[in-house]
Amino acid sequence: MKILLSSVGRRSYLVKYFKEILGEEGEVHVSNSSAYTPAFPAADKNVITPLIYDEGYIPFMLDYCSTNKIDAIIPLFDIDLGALSVDKDKFEQIGTKVIVSDTEVIDICNDKLETSRFLKSYGFNVARTFNSLESAQISLKRKEISYPLIIKPRWGMGSIGIYQADNDEELKVFYKKVLSEIKSTYLKYESQKNIENSILIQERLNGQEYGLDIINDLSANYFNTVVKKKFAMRSGETDCSMTVNNPILKELGEQISLLLKHIGNLDVDVFLDGDTPYILEINARFGGGYPFSHAAGVNLPLAIIKWLENQEVDKSTLTEKENVLSHKDLVITQLPTM
Amino acid sequence: MKILLSSVGRRSYLVKYFKEILGEEGEVHVSNSSAYTPAFPAADKNVITPLIYDEGYIPFMLDYCSTNKIDAIIPLFDIDLGALSVDKDKFEQIGTKVIVSDTEVIDICNDKLETSRFLKSYGFNVARTFNSLESAQISLKRKEISYPLIIKPRWGMGSIGIYQADNDEELKVFYKKVLSEIKSTYLKYESQKNIENSILIQERLNGQEYGLDIINDLSANYFNTVVKKKFAMRSGETDCSMTVNNPILKELGEQISLLLKHIGNLDVDVFLDGDTPYILEINARFGGGYPFSHAAGVNLPLAIIKWLENQEVDKSTLTEKENVLSHKDLVITQLPTM
Repeated sequence: MKILLSSVGRRSYLVKYFKEILGEEGEVHVSNSSAYTPAFPAADKNVITPLIYDEGYIPFMLDYCSTNKIDAIIPLFDIDLGALSVDKDKFEQIGTKVIVSDTEVIDICNDKLETSRFLKSYGFNVARTFNSLESAQISLKRKEISYPLIIKPRWGMGSIGIYQADNDEELKVFYKKVLSEIKSTYLKYESQKNIENSILIQERLNGQEYGLDIINDLSANYFNTVVKKKFAMRSGETDCSMTVNNPILKELGEQISLLLKHIGNLDVDVFLDGDTPYILEINARFGGGYPFSHAAGVNLPLAIIKWLENQEVDKSTLTEKENVLSHKDLVITQLPTM
Repeated sequence: MKILLSSVGRRSYLVKYFKEILGEEGEVHVSNSSAYTPAFPAADKNVITPLIYDEGYIPFMLDYCSTNKIDAIIPLFDIDLGALSVDKDKFEQIGTKVIVSDTEVIDICNDKLETSRFLKSYGFNVARTFNSLESAQISLKRKEISYPLIIKPRWGMGSIGIYQADNDEELKVFYKKVLSEIKSTYLKYESQKNIENSILIQERLNGQEYGLDIINDLSANYFNTVVKKKFAMRSGETDCSMTVNNPILKELGEQISLLLKHIGNLDVDVFLDGDTPYILEINARFGGGYPFSHAAGVNLPLAIIKWLENQEVDKSTLTEKENVLSHKDLVITQLPTM
């Protein structure tokens, strides 16, 4: 079995999880558009690809998968999900399964305005979201919302262009600033879909923050929702999470799974205010919080390999131990000099 | 030999470096004011301390060092440096050496306005720095400086309250915002020294960024300067550095060492614009970039242990291999549930 983790970035832990399962029998390949990719040394083979927005990206990936007899690709970056999802069939034809949700699902996740509209239309609670300065200002005047408000890119990734406005002056200035940051970073590509409506103004959610891994199989059948309570450090310098038994959020996960019919993992950021969950963001991929589930005994990489081999996956493979507290730590790895 | 790394935070790699040297013969203790401290599991013993600003901090540390027969403390957080430096003698009296520079040196490093003034007065190039909105506005009007400008806390730590202003409107808004962020975070303690002058406006430096480890022994005699070129990732999500042979910056390191007479490590952030170095910040402690020097063969923890034992330290112990490229990677570590 040969697996390609595309847009692998710094997710060397995922490379290791897959290598543990495949052992000497299989190969873990990784790809990224930059040579300075932390996860490269951990893999059996690595390849530097064209930029995902480049027209040569899909032909390059098809050629790589064909030449290297890749059984499955797992994309790990939002833009890559969209690109590979559109051309899923082309990969199927050369014998490579792309483990990615349908394009409609990716579009709902990547467009944070659409995320909010979609979830709201099905009765889920979300942060109140505005996609024009005027609409937010009117709502402020009517006292329907209040500061602090979060200004962020509609097609946002990572922490680019996220500001908290605490008053009218900041709201106006940050609104303009986020637009100029979108235009000067790689966010401009996705935002071209609607550049004048590419900024969101959102209520800041209250309550305790949780991360969910909502796990479906490769045919979108629901398996489990892992609920993790997030702890903030005083200095804000690290990540710490604990798996918890929370029936409200587990139930929420199942509802989202049945509605969205995603493939594999869905990474969800949610706040619990009293007993009411408010969903902030959803990502149709392994999220940065997956290792906390893995540390608690969940083994989605193993399940994926078994599903690919048409083997049965026992519920226990995807069931977390409760109250497992873990943190992300830094280690230094030497890279070959280029 | 028993070493205490205080305010250890997420520096588990330093714990490991010291443990490798001390082996079963010695002990590495760590302290922090929060139980959610990533480096705790790596140490032989850990202790949760009062907040550094609490009047009980120094008595607590004295008591801990005395009870546990700690030979040396190495503080790793800016505020802790200042606190322990002031009371160095009290620790000496109970047989614990504090490996920290003199208070004057700490003050120059922690106050970024003083850093700039001090270095400038000795002829070093620094980012032009203003500590009032008016003075920056006048200089802008005279076209002595131009946007982008960086607004940041004068007694800043980590990434709290750092903004880039690209125009007059942003400059005014961020100036106010940084002040309110200082007042609402732990930066307020240091900033009380001069709260109305606790915000800096600085030119954004151009050129290639480098990190220096300027290494003195425990009597402030100069040993070596390790020069590391910093690489930015497209996504800004990781750190990557390479040791390089750069005579200009090595010479700069020696000059700073002779002038400042710091103890142990001095972590310096510097930009090379053509052949002209511009110093951005200096920290009188192990910085986040030390592991890159360690990966290149420098072993300052070993040198410190030898110095403490009055042994000779060979130059080679503190000499880097050139062109060693490393990056920081993430691993997940389980913590005991509290």
